[in-house]
Amino acid sequence: MDIVALREKNPEHWMKSTAIRALALDAVAGANSGHSGMPMGMADVATVLFEKHMKFDVSAPNWPDRDRFILSAGHGSMLIYSLLYLMGDSQVTLDQIKNFRQMGALTAGHPENFLIDAVETTTGPLGQGIANAVGFAMAEEIQRAQYGRKLVDHKTYVIAGDGCLMEGISQEAIGLAGRHSLGNLIVFWDNNNITIDGSVELSDRTNQVNRFRASGWHVQEIDGHDPEAIDEAIEAAKKTKRPSMIACKTHIAIGHAAQDTSKGHGALTDAEQLAAAKELYGWPGDAYEVPADVKSQWEAIGSRGAAEREAWEARFADAGSGKRARFERAYALEAPRKLSATIRNLKKQISEEQPSVATRKSSEMALAAINPIMPETVGGSADLTGSNNTKTEDLGIFDTNNRKGRYIYWGIREHGMAAAMNGMALHGGMRPYGGTFFCFTDYARPSMRLAALSKIPTVFVMTHDSIGVGEDGPTHQPVEHLAICRATPNTYVFRPADSVETAESWEIALTSKETPSVLALTRQNLPTLRTEHKLKNLTAQGAYVLADAEGDRQAILIATGSEVSVAMEAKKLLEAEGIGTRVVSMPCMELFAAQDETYRRKILPPGKSVRVGIEAAVRAGGWDQWLLGERARAGKSDFVGMDSFGASAPAGELFEKFGITAANVVKKVKALL
Amino acid sequence: MDIVALREKNPEHWMKSTAIRALALDAVAGANSGHSGMPMGMADVATVLFEKHMKFDVSAPNWPDRDRFILSAGHGSMLIYSLLYLMGDSQVTLDQIKNFRQMGALTAGHPENFLIDAVETTTGPLGQGIANAVGFAMAEEIQRAQYGRKLVDHKTYVIAGDGCLMEGISQEAIGLAGRHSLGNLIVFWDNNNITIDGSVELSDRTNQVNRFRASGWHVQEIDGHDPEAIDEAIEAAKKTKRPSMIACKTHIAIGHAAQDTSKGHGALTDAEQLAAAKELYGWPGDAYEVPADVKSQWEAIGSRGAAEREAWEARFADAGSGKRARFERAYALEAPRKLSATIRNLKKQISEEQPSVATRKSSEMALAAINPIMPETVGGSADLTGSNNTKTEDLGIFDTNNRKGRYIYWGIREHGMAAAMNGMALHGGMRPYGGTFFCFTDYARPSMRLAALSKIPTVFVMTHDSIGVGEDGPTHQPVEHLAICRATPNTYVFRPADSVETAESWEIALTSKETPSVLALTRQNLPTLRTEHKLKNLTAQGAYVLADAEGDRQAILIATGSEVSVAMEAKKLLEAEGIGTRVVSMPCMELFAAQDETYRRKILPPGKSVRVGIEAAVRAGGWDQWLLGERARAGKSDFVGMDSFGASAPAGELFEKFGITAANVVKKVKALL
Repeated sequence: MDIVALREKNPEHWMKSTAIRALALDAVAGANSGHSGMPMGMADVATVLFEKHMKFDVSAPNWPDRDRFILSAGHGSMLIYSLLYLMGDSQVTLDQIKNFRQMGALTAGHPENFLIDAVETTTGPLGQGIANAVGFAMAEEIQRAQYGRKLVDHKTYVIAGDGCLMEGISQEAIGLAGRHSLGNLIVFWDNNNITIDGSVELSDRTNQVNRFRASGWHVQEIDGHDPEAIDEAIEAAKKTKRPSMIACKTHIAIGHAAQDTSKGHGALTDAEQLAAAKELYGWPGDAYEVPADVKSQWEAIGSRGAAEREAWEARFADAGSGKRARFERAYALEAPRKLSATIRNLKKQISEEQPSVATRKSSEMALAAINPIMPETVGGSADLTGSNNTKTEDLGIFDTNNRKGRYIYWGIREHGMAAAMNGMALHGGMRPYGGTFFCFTDYARPSMRLAALSKIPTVFVMTHDSIGVGEDGPTHQPVEHLAICRATPNTYVFRPADSVETAESWEIALTSKETPSVLALTRQNLPTLRTEHKLKNLTAQGAYVLADAEGDRQAILIATGSEVSVAMEAKKLLEAEGIGTRVVSMPCMELFAAQDETYRRKILPPGKSVRVGIEAAVRAGGWDQWLLGERARAGKSDFVGMDSFGASAPAGELFEKFGITAANVVKKVKALL
Repeated sequence: MDIVALREKNPEHWMKSTAIRALALDAVAGANSGHSGMPMGMADVATVLFEKHMKFDVSAPNWPDRDRFILSAGHGSMLIYSLLYLMGDSQVTLDQIKNFRQMGALTAGHPENFLIDAVETTTGPLGQGIANAVGFAMAEEIQRAQYGRKLVDHKTYVIAGDGCLMEGISQEAIGLAGRHSLGNLIVFWDNNNITIDGSVELSDRTNQVNRFRASGWHVQEIDGHDPEAIDEAIEAAKKTKRPSMIACKTHIAIGHAAQDTSKGHGALTDAEQLAAAKELYGWPGDAYEVPADVKSQWEAIGSRGAAEREAWEARFADAGSGKRARFERAYALEAPRKLSATIRNLKKQISEEQPSVATRKSSEMALAAINPIMPETVGGSADLTGSNNTKTEDLGIFDTNNRKGRYIYWGIREHGMAAAMNGMALHGGMRPYGGTFFCFTDYARPSMRLAALSKIPTVFVMTHDSIGVGEDGPTHQPVEHLAICRATPNTYVFRPADSVETAESWEIALTSKETPSVLALTRQNLPTLRTEHKLKNLTAQGAYVLADAEGDRQAILIATGSEVSVAMEAKKLLEAEGIGTRVVSMPCMELFAAQDETYRRKILPPGKSVRVGIEAAVRAGGWDQWLLGERARAGKSDFVGMDSFGASAPAGELFEKFGITAANVVKKVKALL
């Protein structure tokens, strides 16, 4: 690479982009860890993007109509930290750059949206960013249709590397963006031909250009170090109505001894090589030092968007007060005031009518009441609409000719759906929920974890939540998935027992601001158990006494979801034999664990009574804390559930086969007494 | 669709293929559940494939050099069951067809390899089959190079639907197959333009032909109901040296009222419509009835391969006895006799030299000893070779010009790697292992579950197993992944504490026949704790007393992996204060739980001593059973671990921050006493 020629061709651009390179080199060397090469290679693209195209105001990084910038190749975090520092971001100070990857710094190893306002999404696990971006771009389309172009009209830019494009999730993202002609989505592919193991050819020879074209993308190929070519390509990408991929041929770790090698991917910490690279760059000064003129040019870039922001604020002030209120409420993740009354009315109606329906159907009933009063909800399913019961009449189908549509046919793409939903929520102004079979939590898992880690209140509607799936057999029957979701920090796992608890679960999920929710719902019909209407949301306490012992309490049955009715049946049998039995419904273990000890002891009184947990899933799903802990009488508890995978047969026969029956619960209680 | 024209054009083919259609209709109607339309649509392709191309002998469905047939679109299970019944498979009798999806039947809702010998792999979760097939084809290439074309020379055929191709994992499979020019892999795409939600266009407009071509595949497009076109396409596919995709334009539920609709995807149970379809087909007889001439034609197809099998058996008998023994041993999943001595020698050497290394490095040391004596191992990594330490000198790199290579650069494709490893193991004769970061268990999760469900002893080498990851931060730091793996039935989760336990874990993993193994290994160095050589594999008991209390035992510390040395340090501090402390190392909870109660009580004696569990992960990972259960003194136990996601900082500081230190363990013990 002829660095001198690059320097001479456009010296001003060169110094601006090299500021990123130098900071990346210094910060990684300082941390003695990180990834130097990617920020160095993509510095030219990032510089042109922010200098000439990004609608961005560093003084207001969360202004709603800004362009979004997503670093899907999150390991190159110093690219975004350098940009923010150079532009004068109030959070990413020089001190933060110097503390890159250190305890308590905002400049974490990978960019984290919950630490830095200007970081749109947490990336690092590869392919997530590009799939988040599909959600950002969809959210923009929907809101543009909802609020008008004067209030919503922006682009989503992504930098993705070879790793992102090799991960399967990228295909789901590419397919979705192509299908929906997301013309405001522009992806830069950092085509540097290097992965950790060596050259890309070691593991892939896919022609990425043809691959993107096969899904209907607009594609350009450019020299990623030529500022004019970059500018022209972005200009062209902004004009097309299709999603756009710009293949940027770059040199990883450009100008460093490790250029174009897999070593260049990682931490370049050798002091002599670092100095040699800076010399070749013509970069003056000490570590972390940026010449004043370069810094002030960057600061000017940082405030380029201020006028646009002010113009937008004026337009926003002119918008009707109703529209403004709705917009602000949605962006603040505030539920409409009507929500709680709506839920209460629904609960009352259910308690009166006492339907016997599957909780997936109960969920549809809740959504039918909620969606009309919450225009920020966006529903969808990974090709199981009729099974997940996620679609309500009023939503309309999101499509190229109906951008107002709030229901998305995600296709057979659980992972892409989950990542895009995260993106929609992070974009702001939207409350996405989406469905698949609970067993396919597995496919969506990397994005579900990121929802929890990044504090995104996405709602995952997971139906067919046990062996109740029946004939489809063990490949479709979750047994360990409640355990998986419950083991994940910052996740609400709801397993409602009837239509009332389902409505209550939805209310909590849709008022959560920082915690994703998993709704585990049945395929099979369940009786209404909450036949007495209560204003209070009992699910919010995680667990409560559904039915108390008639006489002296000898046993406590704790159950969730479809097994609460098994517990109620067992109670009847036990009481008939004079064994006083309390039934505790526990729709959300996390919320119960969060109650104070007084409440928990009220529900699960210490000692005396024997306890049996009932859940058509593995005991490892958090049960021991209630059966052995919480001052239970040692040894005086048992569990009725699954300790193997399921089988293929009618659901009723499977519950018999695996012993998840009232008779078996009775047997266990009596054995304990 | 002009059914009459199809019937008349090739009546004999029509009746054979319609036998599949009729059986699928009858069995689904009988079960009142299942998927009728796909077997009906792909019956012509399957018929031509088995009649003219598949090297298959129904009397010996596991003959090693047979062609493999993989139904990636596993919901169409009646296709494979019909084929097997028609050809005279000894397991899939008419009775089984009549009991489709019923309790105890081999004919489960989705095809399960562990129920029916002729079913190569368990499918249903979409995209798995096509990715398994990549592993089958790789295994064939490697073994052809190892044993010669006379013993190994067969094809892998796959039927994949739109669902398989929309799942991201398909892109990982397509990229791998293209990269490695897997010429013996032939995929039929059931191009029926229907998904559950409606037409494919609702969610995707990808040009699949161009997509496969972009990854170097040979692609043909044919009418999937034209037997001559099918035959010619297979012929051409067999000749090319590239992987081949045959796009078969088909009509789902052909000839039925639900043809070409999403209703046709599911269970077609209406008796009148069923009768009308059979009438249109010209299909005589009652339900489940197949005309004798058609049945005998199919039985002839079933034994077409017998002569080829016998010729192979003769060639096999002529092969050298060493080669035969090696082949048979590998297919029987028997470890070489030398393995246990090799492991013992390594353990002895470690106990003497007492290296302080990361367990990922210990794993490499074990592999360096194992790989040369086990030619059936195949290693690899999802682009983290240098970090996972999965590559040993002797393996060689698998490539188009080195089919003997036993190390695979999987690229950034954890999911595809896991599925392909499952395929390799299912092919027979191979012991695959592959690495990624433990956190990216998430990406591989659907295939890891299928390994457990399908009883495949794949080995997942998961390094960087805790906050010990350090600066890369919470996106790369597992906290819930031990819980996830342990909650999954039929999975060994090893978290070895030092190089000796790592070697022992490998021995168990490589002698397991029906259980996959997860090796959770550290990034950071650990001292050797097993300094006294023992012949016995102590890890095989799951847990053991590493160091007993010096005086009166007051505390038991139970720890795994990197935290065992924390426990040893805490013991030292406690003993100094006169608190007798036992340290139990628990490298594998599943194996400990499988011991008899006598042994378990010997390690964790009831009552008296207080217990503290130590693991840099969430307590939900199975800890309560040892801390609250197993006759622990109620309330007299505690846990030192994680209850949140991690953070980005140097590893040592993180262990301090989250309190996973000897000092904190001491504090907890003293608080309990």
